[in-house]
Amino acid sequence: MTEARRDNDRRAAAFVPGHVTGFFSPYDADEPVRAGSRGAGVTLSDGVRVTVRADDPSTASRLTLDGTPLSMPPVETVLTALDAEGAHVVAESDLPLGTGFGVSGAIALGTALAANHALDRGRSANDLVALAHRAEVLAGTGLGDVVAQARGGVPIRLDPGAPPHGRLDGVPATRRVEYVTFGGLSTADVLAGDTDSLVDAGDRALSGLTDRPTLSGLLAASRRFASRTGLPTDRVRGVVDDVVDTGGEASMAMLGETVFSLGTGLTDTGVDADVCRICQTGAHLLPPDRS
Amino acid sequence: MTEARRDNDRRAAAFVPGHVTGFFSPYDADEPVRAGSRGAGVTLSDGVRVTVRADDPSTASRLTLDGTPLSMPPVETVLTALDAEGAHVVAESDLPLGTGFGVSGAIALGTALAANHALDRGRSANDLVALAHRAEVLAGTGLGDVVAQARGGVPIRLDPGAPPHGRLDGVPATRRVEYVTFGGLSTADVLAGDTDSLVDAGDRALSGLTDRPTLSGLLAASRRFASRTGLPTDRVRGVVDDVVDTGGEASMAMLGETVFSLGTGLTDTGVDADVCRICQTGAHLLPPDRS
Repeated sequence: MTEARRDNDRRAAAFVPGHVTGFFSPYDADEPVRAGSRGAGVTLSDGVRVTVRADDPSTASRLTLDGTPLSMPPVETVLTALDAEGAHVVAESDLPLGTGFGVSGAIALGTALAANHALDRGRSANDLVALAHRAEVLAGTGLGDVVAQARGGVPIRLDPGAPPHGRLDGVPATRRVEYVTFGGLSTADVLAGDTDSLVDAGDRALSGLTDRPTLSGLLAASRRFASRTGLPTDRVRGVVDDVVDTGGEASMAMLGETVFSLGTGLTDTGVDADVCRICQTGAHLLPPDRS
Repeated sequence: MTEARRDNDRRAAAFVPGHVTGFFSPYDADEPVRAGSRGAGVTLSDGVRVTVRADDPSTASRLTLDGTPLSMPPVETVLTALDAEGAHVVAESDLPLGTGFGVSGAIALGTALAANHALDRGRSANDLVALAHRAEVLAGTGLGDVVAQARGGVPIRLDPGAPPHGRLDGVPATRRVEYVTFGGLSTADVLAGDTDSLVDAGDRALSGLTDRPTLSGLLAASRRFASRTGLPTDRVRGVVDDVVDTGGEASMAMLGETVFSLGTGLTDTGVDADVCRICQTGAHLLPPDRS
């Protein structure tokens, strides 16, 4: 019997970092665990804490996010796969949902980690990542966030899919990150459009980054991807241009009406940005005293 | 130009967790990057901080560990591969060298991460891990620590070797870990002995753990491996037996005259043990203000 279950009977908590994608190429596949995206982005020390209670009579809600009950199909899929339909999930997020921070993937992955631990399901880390990735792909809510969030740091998604299919590398880096969001963009709408040009622009960006995997290279490749795909709104384009004109580095978070910058890029231009760091730690269980 | 280089000209620091192996199967290969071991262990929040200065006229020493100059062939190999022969490496360790904590691998990997950053070499995370792993294999100082330390958590080494050859999974877990060491054992002597029986015992342990990847399963598999291979000294066997008799979980660190336990296993038996936690973070650069 583990420490967690002695201290907090059938309850466990996990932290999952936020993730902003700089560029991506979507890849479909018959098996959801092989589908996903290639691309690169930055994981954030701002993220989501997910607590799973095996049975909590104090609430009828299956899932709350920052106190508000909601329904998220990927969370349902994860709980069903872990035979945890009676569990209750409490998510607390530093980041807004649906604006390009991977909050949906974070809740799915955090639920998988915490439910596995609370209910002693004995799944491996790769199994839980694959389960959450598959749930996100099936729901159409994410293609690459979960595998990136499981790794932490600055993940490069060399091949799409979850373990054992996907393949990751990373940019070794530590840095302050700033971000500002103006709202959401529909991933489904973008993926319903011309994905051939997305794949072409994403693969070109990836090839440039793997030649020289640095943070500056990631941001430059992300801006070229944004420009080629025409995804930024006028507002996002204006903010990114301001940062670059001030000598900073910024790009758009795919997919949200959201800008992220390195260092003090956004605040240097007078934007009231949130501040965090690159998250060196991938998704992980929290010790019982912090759960 | 990155934040790190603005604040600390051509200097960078990295943290690499300690790693105790519970069981392993050594695998040789013509290419060192494909050689290594299968097995499993626990990474520790106690570890090694490595600072690399591109050029430091204040010291003639290439490498110091806790203030003492020393020579480590893997570090030389790493610096040469990064064209960083003029660099100086300062390592500070929470853990003793040569007693089964992966300190040698930690210094090699920390040197790779910090030298790449200080000298702006633009290598990817996988490249740096492969470089440090290869250096350890060539020197005969480690077979699986580097890839485990790069991951953090509780790494399961499914296939030997560094990226892109090796394959990892993990036990999702958070836990207090205690350890005590009585001295070193020679890895080279053990590997010069009957490796067939090591491979057999290691593969049996791995198969048992992957069937149900839990911390308790890891410790039980590690004790069976220790018993089958006869590697524990009388003193190590006595301490492990005491912990198990008290209802705790402990095993021997491969390879050192070292015992590690979960929770308060060692202190519950009156052993004056060091205390840390499973390290959720793999090897990573430190922010400039902490370097």
